[in-house]
Amino acid sequence: MTDVEKIGRYARRASESLTEASADIKNACLLRLADLLEAEMEKILAANSFDVRDGKRALTEAMADRLMLNEERIKGIAADVRSVAGLGDPVGEIFESRVHANGMRIEKRRVPIGVAAVIYESRPNVTIDAASLMIKSGNAVILRGGKETIRTNQALVELVHEALLAVGLDRNCVQFIDLPDRSLLLDLLRQPTFIDIVIPRGGRGLHQFCRENSQIPVITGGIGVCHLFVDESADFVKAASVIRNAKVQRPTVCNALETLLVHRSIAAQFLPMICNLLSMDGVAFRVDDSCAEILALNGINTAAYQLAQIGDFDMEWLDLTLSVRVVDTLDDAISHIRLHSTGHSDGILTESFENADQFVRAVNSACVYVNASTRFTDGSQLGLGAEIAISTQPLHARGPMALRELTTYKWVIQGDYQIRP
Amino acid sequence: MTDVEKIGRYARRASESLTEASADIKNACLLRLADLLEAEMEKILAANSFDVRDGKRALTEAMADRLMLNEERIKGIAADVRSVAGLGDPVGEIFESRVHANGMRIEKRRVPIGVAAVIYESRPNVTIDAASLMIKSGNAVILRGGKETIRTNQALVELVHEALLAVGLDRNCVQFIDLPDRSLLLDLLRQPTFIDIVIPRGGRGLHQFCRENSQIPVITGGIGVCHLFVDESADFVKAASVIRNAKVQRPTVCNALETLLVHRSIAAQFLPMICNLLSMDGVAFRVDDSCAEILALNGINTAAYQLAQIGDFDMEWLDLTLSVRVVDTLDDAISHIRLHSTGHSDGILTESFENADQFVRAVNSACVYVNASTRFTDGSQLGLGAEIAISTQPLHARGPMALRELTTYKWVIQGDYQIRP
Repeated sequence: MTDVEKIGRYARRASESLTEASADIKNACLLRLADLLEAEMEKILAANSFDVRDGKRALTEAMADRLMLNEERIKGIAADVRSVAGLGDPVGEIFESRVHANGMRIEKRRVPIGVAAVIYESRPNVTIDAASLMIKSGNAVILRGGKETIRTNQALVELVHEALLAVGLDRNCVQFIDLPDRSLLLDLLRQPTFIDIVIPRGGRGLHQFCRENSQIPVITGGIGVCHLFVDESADFVKAASVIRNAKVQRPTVCNALETLLVHRSIAAQFLPMICNLLSMDGVAFRVDDSCAEILALNGINTAAYQLAQIGDFDMEWLDLTLSVRVVDTLDDAISHIRLHSTGHSDGILTESFENADQFVRAVNSACVYVNASTRFTDGSQLGLGAEIAISTQPLHARGPMALRELTTYKWVIQGDYQIRP
Repeated sequence: MTDVEKIGRYARRASESLTEASADIKNACLLRLADLLEAEMEKILAANSFDVRDGKRALTEAMADRLMLNEERIKGIAADVRSVAGLGDPVGEIFESRVHANGMRIEKRRVPIGVAAVIYESRPNVTIDAASLMIKSGNAVILRGGKETIRTNQALVELVHEALLAVGLDRNCVQFIDLPDRSLLLDLLRQPTFIDIVIPRGGRGLHQFCRENSQIPVITGGIGVCHLFVDESADFVKAASVIRNAKVQRPTVCNALETLLVHRSIAAQFLPMICNLLSMDGVAFRVDDSCAEILALNGINTAAYQLAQIGDFDMEWLDLTLSVRVVDTLDDAISHIRLHSTGHSDGILTESFENADQFVRAVNSACVYVNASTRFTDGSQLGLGAEIAISTQPLHARGPMALRELTTYKWVIQGDYQIRP
């Protein structure tokens, strides 16, 4: 039995007890964890300081910043755990029921999925986020974080174990793999007997690796080449405000805008305006020929934009770069989105009900917007209260996933000794 | 570009038009298909006769019978297609909606999954079943049937194409791979860009092959090592009737009973009775030591039973064999089921509300029964009207899957140019 198989067996066994744990027990565990995070802050910060020290040598500043914890961030993590404790427990909900003609009562009852593996990279808050959402939804979880935060994660998982044991739950409800080499990950992805769902959280490479090598269903997502299309009828000032919000407010996240499509009939008016506006925020533009021509004709500083290269319209920039293209029709906008979107969040800005309706029907992304910022694709914003991942694949759940999306159902059929004729 | 990649691309393109097809168009297509099946009966029977002729040489009689069509069976298939046409269209249903504090309308709208691959073995009715359910739910499908029925399937798919074209739909909504070698199947399982879901319909080997080699989520299922546990409080006569129905009515299907667990306190009374009863139907028993002892003490003919061998309790017999074991407690029954069940359909026969409740909570199968036959695990019986597969894995859908289970959802967010603060 390999180590990973052993971990899988432990997880399966732990999940059997966690499945039946009451909401009270699970909430008590989370509240205890939140308290421990605050009480043991010094211990966490000490472990984190070693990761940060090594990170500073090996990583870019932005990456090193991501793995850094401080008092405020830990308080934020603890607050998130308390907020998960405050959410309703989806487990046990009977969400459909009917009576068979023969009198049997047939119902669908929500139950935990079982065992999840969460594979993530450097942000240590994922360790606690994932652990708390999984405990609350009754799933055992195997966490496999990045090597850059291994000491921080070990310290955090110790507290999770302490919280589990304090309420009488199996500590193996949350297991942490602290040997981040790829061969172990490969082993993990090949345990369909013990693991029911794999949730990668990281870049395209990680998602692709999981999908290509997993014998367990993988929830891919979190990669957002998000589009907004400015239709000819859009209100220019309001549209500009939505575009600015989508691009500038937090450019490093997956629901930020990456590509702007503008209807040709309004391009000459709209493009110089949006370009001037966003330039003040430091946005750099990658534009198609039509757009470049319009910007040049309108005397926009040529330093502000450059011609798009092959592949630019497939880029998830995650910075202040914005791809811009002029399209002839709504259909062209839809075709562009079908070809280049990652199926995360795409929207139309329009005053036309008919065009909005056509766009919503034709664009098959997890979240489709009419006159709103793509930045709303988020578990809290869409009413889920939290988020473990944003799925861009169609199976099981799409868009933000939280507690309910971490459950499945079983059919319960109760009768009076009925037989099938 | 490989052939399979080409098929994938065609399917993706076809799915984009099918996604938007109205219920009227899709129903017209199905009704046309049903008419064609009846009108072209001779052509189908002629093709089928070649498959049957070759099948008789190579296959067991039971297998050869499975691939045989006759007038009555084709009429039955046509009737099934008409019944699918009569079901409600799940696509477009708005099944959740709320208003954000900022006024945006947020809704979840049901949409087709996209492209499915259905991999099946010898039954040619699957070709039409799968095609009609996929068309109705707006999904393009790639069918890959067994080599034993290739001529029948070709004839059937020709009619599907005729029906699609008659209503102006893309014929590539349903594609059929008529080269049933494993390397093509492998290619198919590695097209996550073009295929969204893989549904194998066949034996354990096929399911395992798909799961191990697929880069696309696989709905495994359809393997049923189903249990009934006779609790000490069960009504003997009624319990016997349920057991008989579950085992004998149609032993070759996945929801048939394979293992009977009997509480020790009633074993001496119940086992001789059930053994005598089922023996009259030709049931052969594989029993544990305790059961053998009881049967011997009660003078049951030793020809009726034999001691269970290692592995017998994991057998999906699919014939008139029944594994029988005596257990000391409800907990032991639950442990046995957790260890040996395939998670398909398992039940308890009891008069105790408390024991029923404990069983239902602890047994995590797709369908959990109290005082009813496992034979009810079926799309029509549970109210879905049809069935493409019975899922025993927890992701996306569990138990019988039909039209709604072949959809996913997208979030549609409509606002008045809201931005995220």
